[in-house]
Amino acid sequence: MQAQPVRLRTDSADFEAAFRDRLHWSADTDAAIEQRVADILADVQARGDAAVLDYTARFDGLAAPDMAALELTQADFKAAFDAIPAAQRDALQAAAKRVRSYHEAQKKASGESWSYRDEDGTLLGQKVTPLDRVGIYVPGGKAAYPSSLLMNAIPAHVAGVQEIIMVVPTPVRGSVATGGTGAQLASSKGERNELVLAAAYVAGVTRAFTIGGAQAVAALAYGTATVPKVDKITGPGNAYVASAKKRVFGTVGIDMIAGPSEILVLADGSTPADWVAMDLFSQAEHDELAQSILLCPDAAYLDAVQEAIDRLLPAMPRAEIIAKSLNGRGALIHTRSMEEACAISNRIAPEHLEVSSTDPHRWEPLLRHAGAIFLGAYTSESLGDYCAGPNHVLPTSGTARFSSPLGVYDFQKRSSLIEVSAAGAQVLGTVAAELAYGEGLQAHARAAELRLSPVPPARG
Amino acid sequence: MQAQPVRLRTDSADFEAAFRDRLHWSADTDAAIEQRVADILADVQARGDAAVLDYTARFDGLAAPDMAALELTQADFKAAFDAIPAAQRDALQAAAKRVRSYHEAQKKASGESWSYRDEDGTLLGQKVTPLDRVGIYVPGGKAAYPSSLLMNAIPAHVAGVQEIIMVVPTPVRGSVATGGTGAQLASSKGERNELVLAAAYVAGVTRAFTIGGAQAVAALAYGTATVPKVDKITGPGNAYVASAKKRVFGTVGIDMIAGPSEILVLADGSTPADWVAMDLFSQAEHDELAQSILLCPDAAYLDAVQEAIDRLLPAMPRAEIIAKSLNGRGALIHTRSMEEACAISNRIAPEHLEVSSTDPHRWEPLLRHAGAIFLGAYTSESLGDYCAGPNHVLPTSGTARFSSPLGVYDFQKRSSLIEVSAAGAQVLGTVAAELAYGEGLQAHARAAELRLSPVPPARG
Repeated sequence: MQAQPVRLRTDSADFEAAFRDRLHWSADTDAAIEQRVADILADVQARGDAAVLDYTARFDGLAAPDMAALELTQADFKAAFDAIPAAQRDALQAAAKRVRSYHEAQKKASGESWSYRDEDGTLLGQKVTPLDRVGIYVPGGKAAYPSSLLMNAIPAHVAGVQEIIMVVPTPVRGSVATGGTGAQLASSKGERNELVLAAAYVAGVTRAFTIGGAQAVAALAYGTATVPKVDKITGPGNAYVASAKKRVFGTVGIDMIAGPSEILVLADGSTPADWVAMDLFSQAEHDELAQSILLCPDAAYLDAVQEAIDRLLPAMPRAEIIAKSLNGRGALIHTRSMEEACAISNRIAPEHLEVSSTDPHRWEPLLRHAGAIFLGAYTSESLGDYCAGPNHVLPTSGTARFSSPLGVYDFQKRSSLIEVSAAGAQVLGTVAAELAYGEGLQAHARAAELRLSPVPPARG
Repeated sequence: MQAQPVRLRTDSADFEAAFRDRLHWSADTDAAIEQRVADILADVQARGDAAVLDYTARFDGLAAPDMAALELTQADFKAAFDAIPAAQRDALQAAAKRVRSYHEAQKKASGESWSYRDEDGTLLGQKVTPLDRVGIYVPGGKAAYPSSLLMNAIPAHVAGVQEIIMVVPTPVRGSVATGGTGAQLASSKGERNELVLAAAYVAGVTRAFTIGGAQAVAALAYGTATVPKVDKITGPGNAYVASAKKRVFGTVGIDMIAGPSEILVLADGSTPADWVAMDLFSQAEHDELAQSILLCPDAAYLDAVQEAIDRLLPAMPRAEIIAKSLNGRGALIHTRSMEEACAISNRIAPEHLEVSSTDPHRWEPLLRHAGAIFLGAYTSESLGDYCAGPNHVLPTSGTARFSSPLGVYDFQKRSSLIEVSAAGAQVLGTVAAELAYGEGLQAHARAAELRLSPVPPARG
């Protein structure tokens, strides 16, 4: 097996076309999926628990007599936590502690209420409050990552959310959800991921249901007799989950819809080539569609990284996925300079951006768009994925141009506060009335004028 | 004409049903509109300017030879500003100044970069940067509000956005966009709103095009030869615009999709009844679907407000809309107490919430969900709409449960910053590797382990 990311040079005439071609990715919207999801949402809205039970039996092969049978308990979480190896327990707790501490700093820096009074004694400000109840979607199957649960639940907790409802499908092998046909499944025992349950124990999840797909999103968005209606749904999922989340947006809040994961490494050639090769692998092993790109002004260094790729790949258990990802979407790009590498990075707006340089703070100010910026040779993306502290839920597919990592702010909302003083009303009333008359909104104008003393006669 | 909001009592047996019935509103998704919007988006994506010109001719009756003819210039803005009455000029500038000053405070309180180093010397933080370029949709026709332009453009400016692209349809009378059939329109002169153009001058708009509808949203989201592609689109619009914004969400950022406007007044009976009646009118005059609700523990005060409604309505130029809104969706609710009124308010999560009380700070802490909270008798909602300072773009239809006023934060995005020290990598590497092996992601584990000294042999 060979992994050979395409080799590009920015000073070549065909760079622009080749670069665009490599970057191209678009989330196909599948009309058939959209229609099925719309039907499932409508059905769950109409029939509640009964519909959720039906779809869970049909898609996950999980025949449950009632919703109570699909609820996980705190005792389940505790049992899972006690059952995993001590090293995993310690690692989960160490990661949770660092993630919590970072998000507490985030809340302090940007998530507190504030107010001030102007010269007229008018109070202006903003009150920041947590959401009451949120739902977290945790995928089952191959993409069941306990670390994702920590990254979704901990910021919600830090924000002050009182109830966190988790949904995690536990499909039976051979069910539609696991890639089977679902024909003649009789089992009522879905496959649970013990590490996810242990993470639920560490992160603190209020209630949890072993349901998934569009039906789980619908249950959280509309509420059923058993599943509480939430205010926001976060967490990754497959195409059905993504389509369902888009569709319930507005009824509830949602986080961003994630595309394939990406890493961009800006290297000045000072980091051991093996380290960078492994960082590219760590992105590529997620998914054949994942994208790993290395930008460097030193051609010899690119050769060294390719050599490391060749040497290290055979030992990787997920070598096949890595090779497909690197061959299909990877790139080693020889740039004219680090400055040019930074400019290209801004065009890509990558999810993960490693600045593998002896002087990362020289380049960081040039980097305008990225989900997370990893500075210096020691900062492998994988440290950020698990335990450095910042969130690993990051904007993908260039959406870092306009969106942010998941954070405490996603589990808070703001209310403006205004208390106009009697003196302030005299100044503001005149301005507001003038503009309101200009817009033809006379009641607006009169409401302002009634607070003036003396009250002017009605205009217009 | 009579305006008689329904009168409810919370201690009545049928309150719950009547209350739910009154609150009920749902944004119908019209499949025909959705399909037409999907077609328009695809066409603009494929044909660019040519498609935009076609739709503008068809829907707005505005036949332009090329896109240049649909571009407004800075000179147009300046001319409009110079042409309006001095009182309007002063009012626009006074409002802009206050709105800017509030949003500057907002940026300082919650929109600055931050970082810290932990005990191992590892740097953690978040860098806050403005979006590069945003699009602002300004409706033409009856809902053309210059104040909305200020409320969208100023926070973008304060955030540091370099380019603000405005789109504002200027439909020809008799065109489809103005409710006509569009048959045999030959004019090439659309109707411009001079106050909107003057507001563009005051707010500082980089470029502007007289286009609207789904085609304008598409032009901003995908870019054309003439219209620059933006990173985010904000601003209100009709059902076509709302559907188009939902559809391009992910390609660009969008703000919330607004429903009908709402006001909830919590009154202890101390504010002149005329003031409160006019505040209810000021919401109702927007739209027949707008909702005005008054909650008060004092039945005599509700009578007084109803009397004021009867007396003040005939003089209102928009009396017909006000009456339809109050009759169809308004309510005067007699509560057992102010505490109960606050609890009901939290269920509604209103866009605008007036606490018309001598002691508003007693009740404010009880209020968990609202777009903006107006404290005390002098704080009419209309002062907040125009010039108090806070944004008037607020979450509607109960979405204040999970979303916030438009703000500087909507025009910024965050990037996590992580710089792990050599010492930090020794601690974090062990934790990350343990969790990565647990998730079956060996390249993640190895990338962490390569930074350990000595490098441990590969596991699994």
